[in-house]
Amino acid sequence: MQITGTGIGQGVAVGPVVRMAEPLPEPVDRPSHLDPKLEGERARASMSVVAAELTSRGARAGGAAQDVLEAQAMIAEDPSLVDDVTSRLDEGKTAERAVFEAFASYRDLLAGMGGYMAERAADLDDISQRVIAHLLKLPAPGVPDPGHPFVLVARDLAPADTATLDLDQVLGLVTVDGGPTSHTAILAREKSIVAIVGAADAASLADGDIVIVDAANGLVLSDPTPDDIAAAEARIAERAALEAAPVTPGALADGTPVPLLANLGSADGAAEALRLGAEGVGLFRTEFLFLDADTAPSIADQQAQYSKMLSAFAGKKVVVRVLDAGADKPLSFLNDAPEENPALGLRGIRALRHSEVILREQLTALAAADAATDAELWVMAPMIATVDETRYFTALAKELGIRVAGVMVETPSAALVADHVLAACDFASIGTNDLTQYTMAADRLLGTVAKLQDPWHPAVLRLIADVGRAGKELGKPVGICGEAAADPLLAVVLVGLGATSLSMSPSALADVRASLARYSPDDAKSLAGAALAAEGAAEARAAALAVATEITTAREAAS
Amino acid sequence: MQITGTGIGQGVAVGPVVRMAEPLPEPVDRPSHLDPKLEGERARASMSVVAAELTSRGARAGGAAQDVLEAQAMIAEDPSLVDDVTSRLDEGKTAERAVFEAFASYRDLLAGMGGYMAERAADLDDISQRVIAHLLKLPAPGVPDPGHPFVLVARDLAPADTATLDLDQVLGLVTVDGGPTSHTAILAREKSIVAIVGAADAASLADGDIVIVDAANGLVLSDPTPDDIAAAEARIAERAALEAAPVTPGALADGTPVPLLANLGSADGAAEALRLGAEGVGLFRTEFLFLDADTAPSIADQQAQYSKMLSAFAGKKVVVRVLDAGADKPLSFLNDAPEENPALGLRGIRALRHSEVILREQLTALAAADAATDAELWVMAPMIATVDETRYFTALAKELGIRVAGVMVETPSAALVADHVLAACDFASIGTNDLTQYTMAADRLLGTVAKLQDPWHPAVLRLIADVGRAGKELGKPVGICGEAAADPLLAVVLVGLGATSLSMSPSALADVRASLARYSPDDAKSLAGAALAAEGAAEARAAALAVATEITTAREAAS
Repeated sequence: MQITGTGIGQGVAVGPVVRMAEPLPEPVDRPSHLDPKLEGERARASMSVVAAELTSRGARAGGAAQDVLEAQAMIAEDPSLVDDVTSRLDEGKTAERAVFEAFASYRDLLAGMGGYMAERAADLDDISQRVIAHLLKLPAPGVPDPGHPFVLVARDLAPADTATLDLDQVLGLVTVDGGPTSHTAILAREKSIVAIVGAADAASLADGDIVIVDAANGLVLSDPTPDDIAAAEARIAERAALEAAPVTPGALADGTPVPLLANLGSADGAAEALRLGAEGVGLFRTEFLFLDADTAPSIADQQAQYSKMLSAFAGKKVVVRVLDAGADKPLSFLNDAPEENPALGLRGIRALRHSEVILREQLTALAAADAATDAELWVMAPMIATVDETRYFTALAKELGIRVAGVMVETPSAALVADHVLAACDFASIGTNDLTQYTMAADRLLGTVAKLQDPWHPAVLRLIADVGRAGKELGKPVGICGEAAADPLLAVVLVGLGATSLSMSPSALADVRASLARYSPDDAKSLAGAALAAEGAAEARAAALAVATEITTAREAAS
Repeated sequence: MQITGTGIGQGVAVGPVVRMAEPLPEPVDRPSHLDPKLEGERARASMSVVAAELTSRGARAGGAAQDVLEAQAMIAEDPSLVDDVTSRLDEGKTAERAVFEAFASYRDLLAGMGGYMAERAADLDDISQRVIAHLLKLPAPGVPDPGHPFVLVARDLAPADTATLDLDQVLGLVTVDGGPTSHTAILAREKSIVAIVGAADAASLADGDIVIVDAANGLVLSDPTPDDIAAAEARIAERAALEAAPVTPGALADGTPVPLLANLGSADGAAEALRLGAEGVGLFRTEFLFLDADTAPSIADQQAQYSKMLSAFAGKKVVVRVLDAGADKPLSFLNDAPEENPALGLRGIRALRHSEVILREQLTALAAADAATDAELWVMAPMIATVDETRYFTALAKELGIRVAGVMVETPSAALVADHVLAACDFASIGTNDLTQYTMAADRLLGTVAKLQDPWHPAVLRLIADVGRAGKELGKPVGICGEAAADPLLAVVLVGLGATSLSMSPSALADVRASLARYSPDDAKSLAGAALAAEGAAEARAAALAVATEITTAREAAS
């Protein structure tokens, strides 16, 4: 059976399915048929087993994860929690209900404390679910740990689950929900996990089924034949060879350079990005400095972080995006007013202009870091919608010592008046995820409209062409820093539309580099023209693919 | 002093300010210093006074409003509420707190019942606020009733307040919050109230100040001189003459017809629209049939309502929009899943496709009403983003007997691929409110980003030009049914961009008709070209105005 979904990256994986358990329902509050003493034994036994499991998982994980898991193990057997459970059992409740209530009450207490303690509140829910699952003899919720490599099949993953996946064990990931720009997809891409998201029919897969996960084609194949498996393994070997190949600068077939850059969320990924051949950073997100803070970090702290990043890319271009708060990333000190539609709210440059001191401090720290290091710093503002905002940002950036200041093109309006916007700044970088979301008027994190979130849609491509044309006329660089740049075929189309550099998750660099090398500038324009003329996303992809196949076939015939 | 804001319509008003009181804070729960008996007398006295006020307001209002207000008067003195208040006073609470708690508990009870009773819950809050205000000797919240004509100044109005405004008493309306497409603005436009919204500095106006409200220029002038007042009154007289002028079909100076149509939300406004010269209906919203229901209305009920509307416009075009649920209009039987960004969610055609039976029934009822009446029925789908959705809707509509089926262009994507979209349907109608919202990526109901909601922005105009061009090439009509069509100067630009008809609140028809008659088709194209080339909304308006002034000056010099 073939199950279709949205593939993330170009990888292939083969292995047995292990399903992630669904969250448990809340235990019903009904009187227990058992003696409170007996219920007490059940509860304490399950709490001990869960504590032992957590300790043993910690020992296997080592490092920071071990500290976290050991702390959780201690909570699972915390004496005051045991006392609370016991007193609820004495009221005649079931062990499941007593555990649920005791943990929930502790959780609420922590949540009420705010700050670090509040962040630990979710751990309580996780431990509580594990104990209740053990009491009910159900599989524990969360990422399973069967003790062998497996293909994880889940409805969707919480960000915390994705972050703690054991990459030596998880061969591939298939989720029922989620679109190409969901958090799960973004994390899978960052960690180079072979993944298919939004595979509605994956719910029918059972534990132990052997499947081939084919991300390049967005397919999960169950019941594969030995030939299917051999073919998949050959592709896995081929991709390993491609990744091991020497890295060269991004370029088209005739040598026209198309710098390939990395999207990074902190300085931590710099070494890996360089190893994979990143020629610089096309999108350095700065939210990580602000997200866990009650106030903005000091100029000195920011400067230290920016210097670290810039030093790692000495002699190379680093494009930093100033704080993009709001929408799904609210910051209490910037904008925490409730909004009906936060994606259409006071976010990006709108929020920064509203709290200019934060923007001034960030630009000051960036200029100081630039002066102290050897990278080529470019700075850009998110969510620009008007020429007025462009002028505001570039004037402030220049005043504070930034040498190259540009804008993200994420709103349809910025693309539509790209001629005026580019005239008022040094460069543009197109954020295809948000640009697609706004162009299609479909929330990119909402499953029911996920199918509309496709950067291949000609409406999106026409906007990108507007920006490319304006860039060419004015001689200003136009980069792409959305996930669209990571699609090897779409990358060629984007260059054909006028993109002068492409920035992506480092894991996608090898595939995109190999794809670009197959086409000349005129080829890229032909692919772009075919896609632009199509009526929908699927048709645009098919049209570009047909032109690409024609070109490669003709070339093979000639050689 | 001049206060600026967004003017709604073209009217002028002069009169004394009466401010609407802000909502009262929740009374503090502290022990009363008075004897419970004395507190009881205070509470009962205030409840009686409020009941008497409500009864007397009802008698003045008459009709349906009288029934509503008399029911509220009875609630204000309801014996079980009085008992509840008394028992809370016996616990030592203040009269204010006891009233607050008793009404709140009754309110929660009603809200829990669901359906009609739940909708009455808000009334309880209103009555409670009135009683508490009387106890505190503060002005009652809600629309004031000073007994003479006045200019109402408020932070913002609840939809219920706007709906019950006494138009003989309210000369004009000035709100601190709100943008050009807020609910208040839309209702003001429908009811032809001279209004300025988003006038941040209006908070400084005091009761009794004489002000001139100049909606055409978005200005409130306080401390006017006698000359200012005389000039304003001359303009009021001039506008009255314009409204009394014989109505003719909409046309440019050379006679090129530009049909002027009405936006209507129910059949009730039909007679008034015809009196004001509407040549048909450009947008008939059908939500009113569905909003207060737990299930969709029957085909027979719908057919009766549609027949009523179509009969009122015998021989004329009536463009009906099928149910546009979702976003700020959720319907439990269609889509009540919570969404992070409902404006980008499962709304319009997306929700209907998800619950196709509702769409089938509505189209069936519309086709039956069309067959039984003499109007020319066109039907269109909201929130079209793709050609695929266009084909889906038109095929279904034709299958069920609709003769003319088209789409609303509200998403940037529909405008950008208008060539393909118009090829797959009979006509397009541009909803400029949502189109502007998505193009600028700014929530049209959110005050902090309201300044971005301006259909004059060249990004929006360029999208409209794309649709106009596609319509001309394919010979398909392109209407405008957003509020942009009600702006007399912008209306000319829209025609220059290719709009073939304009639909608006009937109150705007006279101004737009007079404006169109001043320009030739080439004039309209010149205005449009000037606006398209500008870099921002204000610049586009100024450029169009400069061209318009040049044209009229040259013509006056020549004559």
